[in-house]
Amino acid sequence: MAVYTKLGAETLADIVGAFDVGQLVSAKGIAEGVSNSNWLLETTGTDGGGARFILTMYEMRVEVEDLPFFLGLLDHLAARDCPVPRTIHDRENRAFRFHDGKALALIEFLPGVSVSDPTPAQARAVGGALAQMHLAARDFPETRANGMDLSAWKELLGGCGREGLAGIDPSLPDLVERELAFLSANWPGDLPCGVIHADLFPDNVLMLGGDVSGLIDFYFACNDITAYDIAVTHAAWCFDADGGAFDRALSDALLAGYEAVRPILPEERAMLPVLGRGAAMRFLATRAYDWLHTPADALVTRKDPMAFARRLGFYADPENAAMFGAS
Amino acid sequence: MAVYTKLGAETLADIVGAFDVGQLVSAKGIAEGVSNSNWLLETTGTDGGGARFILTMYEMRVEVEDLPFFLGLLDHLAARDCPVPRTIHDRENRAFRFHDGKALALIEFLPGVSVSDPTPAQARAVGGALAQMHLAARDFPETRANGMDLSAWKELLGGCGREGLAGIDPSLPDLVERELAFLSANWPGDLPCGVIHADLFPDNVLMLGGDVSGLIDFYFACNDITAYDIAVTHAAWCFDADGGAFDRALSDALLAGYEAVRPILPEERAMLPVLGRGAAMRFLATRAYDWLHTPADALVTRKDPMAFARRLGFYADPENAAMFGAS
Repeated sequence: MAVYTKLGAETLADIVGAFDVGQLVSAKGIAEGVSNSNWLLETTGTDGGGARFILTMYEMRVEVEDLPFFLGLLDHLAARDCPVPRTIHDRENRAFRFHDGKALALIEFLPGVSVSDPTPAQARAVGGALAQMHLAARDFPETRANGMDLSAWKELLGGCGREGLAGIDPSLPDLVERELAFLSANWPGDLPCGVIHADLFPDNVLMLGGDVSGLIDFYFACNDITAYDIAVTHAAWCFDADGGAFDRALSDALLAGYEAVRPILPEERAMLPVLGRGAAMRFLATRAYDWLHTPADALVTRKDPMAFARRLGFYADPENAAMFGAS
Repeated sequence: MAVYTKLGAETLADIVGAFDVGQLVSAKGIAEGVSNSNWLLETTGTDGGGARFILTMYEMRVEVEDLPFFLGLLDHLAARDCPVPRTIHDRENRAFRFHDGKALALIEFLPGVSVSDPTPAQARAVGGALAQMHLAARDFPETRANGMDLSAWKELLGGCGREGLAGIDPSLPDLVERELAFLSANWPGDLPCGVIHADLFPDNVLMLGGDVSGLIDFYFACNDITAYDIAVTHAAWCFDADGGAFDRALSDALLAGYEAVRPILPEERAMLPVLGRGAAMRFLATRAYDWLHTPADALVTRKDPMAFARRLGFYADPENAAMFGAS
């Protein structure tokens, strides 16, 4: 979390001037986004009242290539009443612009806060919002491959090496080897696919009380197995923050909330334990890689990879499969 | 710039509940404050419209001891119509509270942006706001010693060592030795004192067009020579961002703006070049110390100490003394 680029008031005012949103009133760099810089902007607005926006500057080239997908998806979903922020287009109707060679986009500000200790009612609402997004994205014409698929997990974990993994936890090298082999052999190839968020952690959901006011941070969104997104969201929401304890009430509520909007097909449900193992491996992979490549004294907080090793163990336990209605 | 502490929505809502400000609607960690964590909060407010606040969590013990001074000063100045944010008191009328052993305060949000390339009109407005603050603080009853005085500069620069300073620039060890000796021998002891901001850089001034909408970040405020605060503000505003070029128009505007509110006494004016050398040394000292104690690859941007070595040279040049009206 960082603001990588410093923009003075004059520059920010120039940038805002490219959009029909009124005059700049306030700008605060906000501590969101792992690889981009973000500001919460306030302007005088165009209808007498003030207006607020998130200005995002993309620091990495790879993201720029995908901006038509990411930003187009927001517009597509917002037009279908999904709780996602709209992209504000500039006076020439462009969804993003360049400043000093870096791409930037102006995004609608949405109210709401990210919960850290969700209730079942909140999990139910998130499940519903995820299903709504899956349905609304069905006719989105752009596509993007999942850059964090099984082959990426293998590459990241290979980059850690057995010794590196053992330094995190002695059990990790064997667990990773065994589970990657299992996932390679058992990853489903015939489930319905579509646009998925792929990173719907509580941090990426804004809530007002029991309602979802915003799904945000679509920068891992891609085309992949729809039920994998359910598994990612399940892994992200249904365990204690330390990854230790599974919360059955949250799990039931999340799945029921999803099914109230889009039925989970029997073949999807049957694969949820495998997809959950994959989801846990995906975050284990990035966390282990970051753990070994971030100095222990860096300002960035390293996230414990073992929280997802424990979730992986949960999904791999046959006794837990029944809970998903899987045979 | 960092958010050191992570607070979930539930915790933030609990904290907000201790104040009579309505319900929490939004919370964004903001990238301000060197040694504390800050959030921009929005609440439902108490009068039908929304309200916004800065929540500051103090990460360092030393600041907590000074909070009655810092926060009391904001209230004192705000009550006298200075453009500073009020401290919101909790339901038990406390200016700060504790959460998990850390002090936190809820501060009024003020609109405005920090300029990086000020105009003379803006410099004039800042001079006026500084003078207004000096007048309004005259009957503030609390006191706080300046922790960044001449003895502190000596200690910081001594901690750098001649070799460390030479590593920044070969000219620096001799410059520092010569100037510290000069300042020790010539630092005024008989000028009017009072509460000073002591760090009024453009970052700490919010502006709306040509008007000052907020003076912020009073965490170096203390009792010291009033004209030293003019010198600090002069050193902070009247040079190009890289510290290379003095801008006479900004200097004249800043001093004229100040004098329009509070006259600069002849004896203060005479000492401005010496006070300017002190102000430049104060920021040279902290920047040199941070330069040598921050890894070059840290996420924190190191600020060039030599920008203030050049300003020091400007104030030490007798040819520039006339500009201040000094004899």
